[in-house]
Amino acid sequence: MSSPLPSHAAGSASHTTAGAARSWTTLRDEKNRRLAAVAPWLKDGVLPRERIVDALEQLVRPGDRVALEGDNQKQADFLSRSLAKVDPQRVHDVHLLISSISRPEHLALFERGIAHRVDFSFAGPQSLRVAQLLEDGQLEVGAIHTYVELYARMFVDLTPQVALLCAEKADRHGNLYTGPNTEDTPTIAEAAAFRHGIVIVQVNEIVDTLPRVDIPGSWVDVVVEADRPFAVEPLFTRDPRHIGDLQVLTAMMVIKGIYAPYGISSLNHGIGFDTAAIELLLPTYGESLGLKGKICRNWTLNPHPTLIPAIESGWVESVHCFGSEVGMEAYIAARPDVFFTGSDGSLRSNRVLCQLAGQYGVDLFIGSTLQIDADANSSTVTRGRLAGFGGAPNMGHDPRGRRHASEAWLKLLKDQGPVSRGHKLVVQLAETWKKGGEPTFVEELDAVAVGEKSGMPVAPVMIYGDDVSHVVTEEGIAHLHKAEGVEERRAALAAVAGVTPIGLTAKREKTDELRRRGIVAFPEDLGIRRGDAKRSLLAARSIDDLVTWSGGLYAPPARFRSW
Amino acid sequence: MSSPLPSHAAGSASHTTAGAARSWTTLRDEKNRRLAAVAPWLKDGVLPRERIVDALEQLVRPGDRVALEGDNQKQADFLSRSLAKVDPQRVHDVHLLISSISRPEHLALFERGIAHRVDFSFAGPQSLRVAQLLEDGQLEVGAIHTYVELYARMFVDLTPQVALLCAEKADRHGNLYTGPNTEDTPTIAEAAAFRHGIVIVQVNEIVDTLPRVDIPGSWVDVVVEADRPFAVEPLFTRDPRHIGDLQVLTAMMVIKGIYAPYGISSLNHGIGFDTAAIELLLPTYGESLGLKGKICRNWTLNPHPTLIPAIESGWVESVHCFGSEVGMEAYIAARPDVFFTGSDGSLRSNRVLCQLAGQYGVDLFIGSTLQIDADANSSTVTRGRLAGFGGAPNMGHDPRGRRHASEAWLKLLKDQGPVSRGHKLVVQLAETWKKGGEPTFVEELDAVAVGEKSGMPVAPVMIYGDDVSHVVTEEGIAHLHKAEGVEERRAALAAVAGVTPIGLTAKREKTDELRRRGIVAFPEDLGIRRGDAKRSLLAARSIDDLVTWSGGLYAPPARFRSW
Repeated sequence: MSSPLPSHAAGSASHTTAGAARSWTTLRDEKNRRLAAVAPWLKDGVLPRERIVDALEQLVRPGDRVALEGDNQKQADFLSRSLAKVDPQRVHDVHLLISSISRPEHLALFERGIAHRVDFSFAGPQSLRVAQLLEDGQLEVGAIHTYVELYARMFVDLTPQVALLCAEKADRHGNLYTGPNTEDTPTIAEAAAFRHGIVIVQVNEIVDTLPRVDIPGSWVDVVVEADRPFAVEPLFTRDPRHIGDLQVLTAMMVIKGIYAPYGISSLNHGIGFDTAAIELLLPTYGESLGLKGKICRNWTLNPHPTLIPAIESGWVESVHCFGSEVGMEAYIAARPDVFFTGSDGSLRSNRVLCQLAGQYGVDLFIGSTLQIDADANSSTVTRGRLAGFGGAPNMGHDPRGRRHASEAWLKLLKDQGPVSRGHKLVVQLAETWKKGGEPTFVEELDAVAVGEKSGMPVAPVMIYGDDVSHVVTEEGIAHLHKAEGVEERRAALAAVAGVTPIGLTAKREKTDELRRRGIVAFPEDLGIRRGDAKRSLLAARSIDDLVTWSGGLYAPPARFRSW
Repeated sequence: MSSPLPSHAAGSASHTTAGAARSWTTLRDEKNRRLAAVAPWLKDGVLPRERIVDALEQLVRPGDRVALEGDNQKQADFLSRSLAKVDPQRVHDVHLLISSISRPEHLALFERGIAHRVDFSFAGPQSLRVAQLLEDGQLEVGAIHTYVELYARMFVDLTPQVALLCAEKADRHGNLYTGPNTEDTPTIAEAAAFRHGIVIVQVNEIVDTLPRVDIPGSWVDVVVEADRPFAVEPLFTRDPRHIGDLQVLTAMMVIKGIYAPYGISSLNHGIGFDTAAIELLLPTYGESLGLKGKICRNWTLNPHPTLIPAIESGWVESVHCFGSEVGMEAYIAARPDVFFTGSDGSLRSNRVLCQLAGQYGVDLFIGSTLQIDADANSSTVTRGRLAGFGGAPNMGHDPRGRRHASEAWLKLLKDQGPVSRGHKLVVQLAETWKKGGEPTFVEELDAVAVGEKSGMPVAPVMIYGDDVSHVVTEEGIAHLHKAEGVEERRAALAAVAGVTPIGLTAKREKTDELRRRGIVAFPEDLGIRRGDAKRSLLAARSIDDLVTWSGGLYAPPARFRSW
């Protein structure tokens, strides 16, 4: 635990040049004042659970910026449920900083007036309610960010007065063991602890000795044992049973038409059945093409269960993770050559460092999207929903600060004279039509109307078309980076857009020319027979298969078990 | 200290699907094997100083990737000097990962054959020798990176087998206190410690109780007390005596012509007298324009001594730092409302998080450069030198993953239909001619020839022209982002390039038109009289003045003292 410096120890020096004396310790003094109010309840920095609402009423003040840990995986839910119970007469108009608005009580904070303004990244499950609260004036959006952008601002203009975090275990000095889901906790703790913010941490358990220390006790002010283990979602688990033949076809095209010729050795996969199919084809189709050891060696990726067969088959050298995945703990601990693990044997994940690695350290980002326009702009925001972006914008763009070259990066170099540079591969995957019977390729993204209706200064686009190098559908691959000029780029995209409004603009002759020039590739151009694209090619066709591949180490959550 | 998991505790599971059993703990086993060889010399994880060369011969193996802490400020110099003493018969062909090649022994590592390959970011003081060693075949460059890009790769394809780090103090459990120069230490430690790399740390002192913990002991394998405190350079100190009237003029233009109209509240300043002049004009010229509280509130910046007058005058809300600055320790500790400090009162810096903040969280990057071409590409690489880039490429580009809007960012929005976005302000400062009598604006960057000669796949450009929004010289401001098309952009740049080869291409009539349209602004267009741009406007005109502003808290290094 930190022992705050008495405010007289440093800082009240003034000098003649600047005129009137002022205090330079107002933030620290305010922190000490608030902590003093709860000090009688603490023992070794530990707050009794039943005091949490009282304590939050003392530690949070109206108008505070409060960073609430809640990303797309773990959630400080004991603290968020407790914050929703404070008296809105005492704590109101809080400015919430949160990665993912995903739990009912997050919305209750706004309905009760405890919070009013929010800066966030993602609101998938609650996006309809967020849009409604916004319309009703109960919620005000600062901005929607990509994950790391929100953390970046916590060190600039959005420094938190209070951070509400979670960890697996604390010892009696306030040292924290996060468990495999380290994720954002160290970053938010750093932003608050070193700017005189109050760091409050819910833990599953208080123990005498930690397996390892993830966050030092001198960064932590209050520890509270939660009523139950913090909430965590198995968001990256994809059941292979739901992968269809079309996704197998697309995955074959990606492996043979992109990964092999571009020499993709380091990469990130988004969430989705499309990319899960790629992972499950490496040990079968990829092996048959002789690609093992040549592609897909170093990953920045959560521990996707669908990666198990590729790991077991010796494809994977390393995986650095944003977070962990429920059920993968024992498997990860048994594969330390592949995963980043501590001296205790468990995973150490880190969202900021993995996003940094995924932005600057890998050659390819590939992910699925819900809508694409004629210029390859894409978004997961659809009508009436304010969903946000998560991590995709950070990894799904060409990082212009990159200065190292690689085989893949140089293949996208356009000769522009003596000052040229390569480009990251940014690949968007999409079926031309969505299950609901709506086209994926549209003339205008829903995001444009949503942005206008919500009063956003620019449309909430997830990935900008000029960053996209390739679009892959069940029809084929558009190598957009090879196209000359905007019109040809649109023609290449249209050529793979099927019978959608965009696809119908394709001209047969232009498409033929683009295929001859290698700008568009249909399966037959790649020597892939549509009839060969069968589920039977998948290295695992069920969760049960994944468990078998793992030698029984993978323990899927109940909802994914069929046995 | 970490207590390595016995290798039989987990990990040798195999399964029938994948065939032959393999070990999944080879990295951890190898680490344990090496540590076992030095275990007899350690007491509580502390190595006696005189054993360091013997220990390095046991802990480092030929071909290892070794991350040596050495950035543009602090240096693990006891460890680098010791590594240079190992027997090259035993330790050779090391692959060095280092931010800044700046000490003589770094070169000795290559001359003696201990190291052969290097991935780095910056080689300012040693750039001539690096170029020579490269030509002689004694050194092979993997790539030149921007700082965070090199760290990113430490989590992907350049994971270190050994990390050689430095800190101020350790306790007897291996917990580390970095002091104010936290910088890169936690990031490199994380990359090594969680990938079964060996973490060796030199400390100035071993103590019973640390002021605070910056890095937990469970991440550290070997601690050694160095022969003297680690080397640290006061690289960000600029003596105001060396700021001339021309720099005052340029700084006035930046404040009145860019900061004020664009509403720049969050920003990063590079190193240099140009930006130091801006810092020193805020409390005088800035105040006279009524800009206090409106601009320059939140900074991502090392603790520049020339920022003291602006801080004391109440301009500065917050400063988050990459590292610290020699002599600023007591001043920082006395201004915790402004700086990020720990519960112990001293600065916590963090290069990765500050670079993230500087990339995504601020509206403006401004820095000086040595050469600019007609398209505003710039580089600090000049003939015969392989200098590298440091942090500029990361902050000096438009971050295409940014999704939040701000007043300044939106002012650079070009209407491109429903899918538009703003742009970061990237400002390059330069005098049209360098002191040595060479033009700053050139037809081709020296970097092009250097890149070709060194066999680099692309020219080592520091900042790409298409990322640059403004160029400012003593002649005026070119608002490049307002220009229509490449030709007009070049004309705007030429208009402020003076009598250089580029400046001479300017046409009077076009320049007049650009001034009328607000694309080019000369001092008179901004209501600035060249005769008013005097050193007397600077809030401090000497280091001594800075000490006075600080109330005696700033303690400049001896080389900066005139008394």
